[in-house]
Parts: sequence; structure tokens; C-alpha cells
Amino acid sequence: MPFAVAALAAAGPGAPLELTTVERREPGPHDVVIDIAHTGICHTDIALLRNHWMEGLFPMVPGHEITGTVVAAGPGVTRHAVGDRVGVGCYVDSCRACENCLAGQEQHCLKGEVLTFGALDYDKRPTFGGYSRRIVVDENYVLRIPDGLGLDVAAPLLCAGVTMYVPLRRWGAGPGRKVAVVGMGGLGHLGVKIAHAMGAEVTVLGRSVSKREDGLRFGADAYVSTEDASWFADRGRSFDLIVNTVSGSIDTNAYLGLLRLDGVLVNAGVTAEAATFQGMLLGDPRRIITSTKNGGIRETQEMLEFCARHGISADIETVPADQVDTALDRLDRGDVRYRFVIDVSTLGQAG
Amino acid sequence: MPFAVAALAAAGPGAPLELTTVERREPGPHDVVIDIAHTGICHTDIALLRNHWMEGLFPMVPGHEITGTVVAAGPGVTRHAVGDRVGVGCYVDSCRACENCLAGQEQHCLKGEVLTFGALDYDKRPTFGGYSRRIVVDENYVLRIPDGLGLDVAAPLLCAGVTMYVPLRRWGAGPGRKVAVVGMGGLGHLGVKIAHAMGAEVTVLGRSVSKREDGLRFGADAYVSTEDASWFADRGRSFDLIVNTVSGSIDTNAYLGLLRLDGVLVNAGVTAEAATFQGMLLGDPRRIITSTKNGGIRETQEMLEFCARHGISADIETVPADQVDTALDRLDRGDVRYRFVIDVSTLGQAG
Repeated sequence: MPFAVAALAAAGPGAPLELTTVERREPGPHDVVIDIAHTGICHTDIALLRNHWMEGLFPMVPGHEITGTVVAAGPGVTRHAVGDRVGVGCYVDSCRACENCLAGQEQHCLKGEVLTFGALDYDKRPTFGGYSRRIVVDENYVLRIPDGLGLDVAAPLLCAGVTMYVPLRRWGAGPGRKVAVVGMGGLGHLGVKIAHAMGAEVTVLGRSVSKREDGLRFGADAYVSTEDASWFADRGRSFDLIVNTVSGSIDTNAYLGLLRLDGVLVNAGVTAEAATFQGMLLGDPRRIITSTKNGGIRETQEMLEFCARHGISADIETVPADQVDTALDRLDRGDVRYRFVIDVSTLGQAG
Repeated sequence: MPFAVAALAAAGPGAPLELTTVERREPGPHDVVIDIAHTGICHTDIALLRNHWMEGLFPMVPGHEITGTVVAAGPGVTRHAVGDRVGVGCYVDSCRACENCLAGQEQHCLKGEVLTFGALDYDKRPTFGGYSRRIVVDENYVLRIPDGLGLDVAAPLLCAGVTMYVPLRRWGAGPGRKVAVVGMGGLGHLGVKIAHAMGAEVTVLGRSVSKREDGLRFGADAYVSTEDASWFADRGRSFDLIVNTVSGSIDTNAYLGLLRLDGVLVNAGVTAEAATFQGMLLGDPRRIITSTKNGGIRETQEMLEFCARHGISADIETVPADQVDTALDRLDRGDVRYRFVIDVSTLGQAG
């Protein structure tokens, strides 16, 4: 039987979150039911709640950085068991048959992966995310949270963590490589930790240097203001990899100028805006611009194991369910160190 | 002793080429003297002659697609001998000590490679290119022209050929891979031949389809007009690699839309203009934009061997020295199939 769960939902674009109930599907043979413990608050939640990128599907229950415990498992489930600590990221299904799914890149499913919230699943049912007490997910889209990672500090790894891990791994962050992380928010602070753990020399480029102390604590070797033009001039052609976590338009030319031959600029911040760069800067020396979009299931699991092995988790500020709107506004202003995580146990207590 | 050679020189920006003599340096122990047989006419010649990119150094003797025969070799020369068929490409020296030179990427020398013409060498002497009868070049910057490659049809390989070969090799053109070449001029026609020889499925995207028959003869599997919007719509997300040979600004978004996950758009056409693309198109699916700039000495030699092995050379129109200005104008209008090559034996006959 489908069942109702307490959730925070927005009735329409820009509307406040209100305590309500939403319906979860009847668990199928390959589904697990997860009792949600914590859900990270991602910039995407704001963008979708406020129709920044597109017309959203409302009522909307955000949340795609979900951790919790399995409380029920269908008879066909083999990967997880009742009592397991698990997580759910940006999507809860994909076609499993296209070339990208077969390559383990389900986030690029050609049929269109089913987003964890604000979307329709393949049976045309709306998906509701982690701002709710329970969720039903096919076991193949559920991650194991390794021992040693708290469910609260692990939640942001499911989106922010893997979004940084994938390009750092793909483009060779490691010993002898100079990596810059632009912006030290939710994504950036995890990027610093992960790149440092991979052995790279890490520089943070932040608007101000107010987070310098934190950055060095996270493993950065240097923390520089993006306003420091002379630093940019001096450091030309010295970086192997720059991961930009800032959404919206950036000064692509300035960052390209920092890259050595075959250096890579990865835009990890989602933007619908156009990016512009000087053709010459891309060619002499030869450089690469690319982007990234969370990660496949296998690489997300790999990221979780990597983080557990290196003691990496998010620096979080935990908020109760009735403070989520305030947290969203603070996040929108950049006022968080470094990720809000909802204590979902407080959700619906009064409901 | 330095010596004088007949050459075609422009006295200033936009000036016609005139028959004159220029001084070549006294050959050093590691230099070879090359009797130039043929020199290809590259778009770069026009750009530098007419100050399109920067203030040029005049008088200017263009030409960086040079083939000929060694007529003298210094006592320290070991790689070439008198009588050898050789070539010279875009540069004639580099620092040999920076990380890029040590990596065999001399075209990205951090001290600044010495361009074959229109530049100053490390002793502040102006360099003069292949629109002249002889040239003196350090043996390490001289390529062997393999048997079976005519010196006339091999000349364009030294710039156009390697400019296509490097990104096709780097980004995996080969069996099972779909490659598009945008523009079928001097670069593009060699790109089609090389990509086909590598085993890729090749599509040419040309402004018109007037060169379709040639394209198919060069090995293309399809030849499509860039005006064909419905083709673009149908072929979305299907290419692995697009090499754009068109200089100036292109519709980056349209080409990005053709790329599948991790597909690569390489800009091989040099442009000083800004390129613009939609941030979203780069990220979903994840794609790569990069550029390319001729090639290192080792990979240029590798390209020549590859072309000889596969019977690849340029389709050329040979022009005598007194027709070079006309050829430059025709090239500027795109009126050549597919590369002008100067018969340098005709240079200075009347001088």
C-alpha cells in the first residue's frame, strides 16, 4: 500500500515550506524504505523552489542529500538490509539500459534519470525529496554509508561531495599536482578536503579571505582572494586543475590564465548563464574547459569509501525542521559554514 | 658567414610581397641548410601579413610549411645528412629546458618558441620563413619527410596536418568513434583523411555541400551543411569528437549539442575573438571544450610517418612565386582546393 509521510512542502514557486504529508509509493520487491535521519540543504533546493532554472513541479518537497536507516526491504533486495545506514543522492532511478547507464554514469541517463525531487518518475508519479520522514527507493540507487561517517556529516557528501570527487579524480588531482578550488562553500570546502586527501597541493580562491583559517584547517596550502590581481598575474600558467564551485558567471579568462599546458577548468557550479572566454587563452597554451554533474552510483559509493578512509565529512550546521526556511535564506546569502543539514527527527513532531 | 637568399617579403602590414633578399645566419655546428622546394600557404600567413592578430615584424617573409633538401650540415649534426628530404613547421627553436619542451611540447615552450617567421630568435635576429630559397635551422627542429611523400603535397602537413593529427590522436579518434570535422579547407581536408585513416566514422560539417564529393573521396562517411538545422536536431548527443577548423567565432552551443557524454569540442581554428557557450550545455551531459596548437617535434614526426603509412597528403594547387599575392587573396576568400603550395624553384629566377 502507498503510505503517507510527514514532509516539508512548498505549495508553489517561492512559497514557504509547510508541514504536510505526501504519499510514498507501495514498496516494490526491489525497494527499500528509509527512515530519514538527516538531509543536507543544497543550492539546488533554492533554485528549484524558486524556479530559477525552470518551471518547477509543485507541491515540492526538496532534498537530495539524504541519509538514514533502512526500515524495510522488499523480498528482492540484496544490496541492503533492515538496519543498514544508507544514503540517497540526486536521483532515484534511471533507465539502466542506455550507454551512459551501462557505463555507470546514471546521472547522465539518456532517458532522463529520475531526480530525487521535483520530477516525475517513470510511472508519472511526482518525486518528493528528503525534507520528509521516510522515502522509498530502489535498492540500486541507495548508497551504503561506511562505518565511521556520521549520518549528519555524511549527508552533504551525496551531492556536494561527489560533485567535487568526480572531477578531482577524473582530472588527476594527486601528488605533484596543483589544484585550485574557487569558492569555499558547501561544494568548495569538501573539494579542499578531498583534493588534499588525494595528495594535491591545494589553493583556495575565495572572494574574501574571511574563511582562510578554515581553509587551511581543511587542508589547503594557500588561501587567496580573487580580488588579488597581482597574485593572479604572478601565478599565471601554474595550475593543473581548477574546480570552480561558484554558480553564475565567472571570469573564465582569469582562471584560464592560471592554467599550465593541458590544465583543466571544471565548472562545478551549475549555471544557466552563458560563459565567455578568449579563444586565444584556450589555445596557447592548450587548455581544457569542462563541467561536471554529481556522479554515477558506483563512483558515489567509491567517494563515500574514500571519505571514510580519509576521515572526510562535511562541516555542518544542523537545523530543526521548523528553521529550514531561515536556513534557505541564509544559504542564499552565503551565510553558512559550510552546509546546513536538517535534523529530520524534528520534522512532524508537532504534526 | 651569414648569406643572402632570394625571398618574397612584405615591407609592411598589408603590403604586397616583393622579390628581395634576406640574410640567413651563418650555419652553426648543429644547423642544417635546407634548399627549399615547396612552401604551403597557411591562413596564418595572411593573419600575420595583415596584422590581424598583432603588430607584425616587418619586412616579413612568411611560410611555415616548408619542405626541401639538406644541402649542408654542421659538424655536430647527427639527425640529418646532406641530400635528406626534410621539413620545417611552425617554429625553429625553443628553450629545450622548460617543462613543456621537456615533455616534447615545444610549441608551448614557456620561454616562447621561436616562430619560423615574423619573430625574433633568441639572439634577437628576425626570422624569415619559407617564401625563400634557403633556410638555416637547428637540426632538432627539422623533420624527416618519409619516402613516398612528395615534397609538394607533404608541405601542408607541417602545420595543417599536425594541427589536425594531435587532437584526433589525443581525443581518441578511432574505430567505433564518431568524429565531425567542421570546415573542409586546408586543415579540414587533412582532418578528414587522418580521422578516416585512424578508423573513425567521419562527418564533415561544411557551410555548403559543394565539396561533398571531395569529402567522401577523402574518407568522410557523411557531409552535411551547417545550415541544416533539422540534421543538428536529429543528431544531438551523438558525436565523440568535433574538431572545428573554422577561424573566427562559431556557434559553440550548436556543436556542444552534438556531443555525447564526455564528448570533446576542439577549436583548431585560431581566433582572437571571444567564444561563448551556455553553461548548461557544457554540464548536461558533461562535455569538454579545448583547443590545439600545431604539435611538438616528436609528434610532428609521428604524424608524417602516419601519413606516409596511410598514403595521406594534402590536395594542393601549386603556384609559382609571382602568383603568391593572388593565391593569398584567393585563400582569404576560401577559393582553394585545398592548399596552395609555392613552387619555390620559381622564386628569384628573374631576380
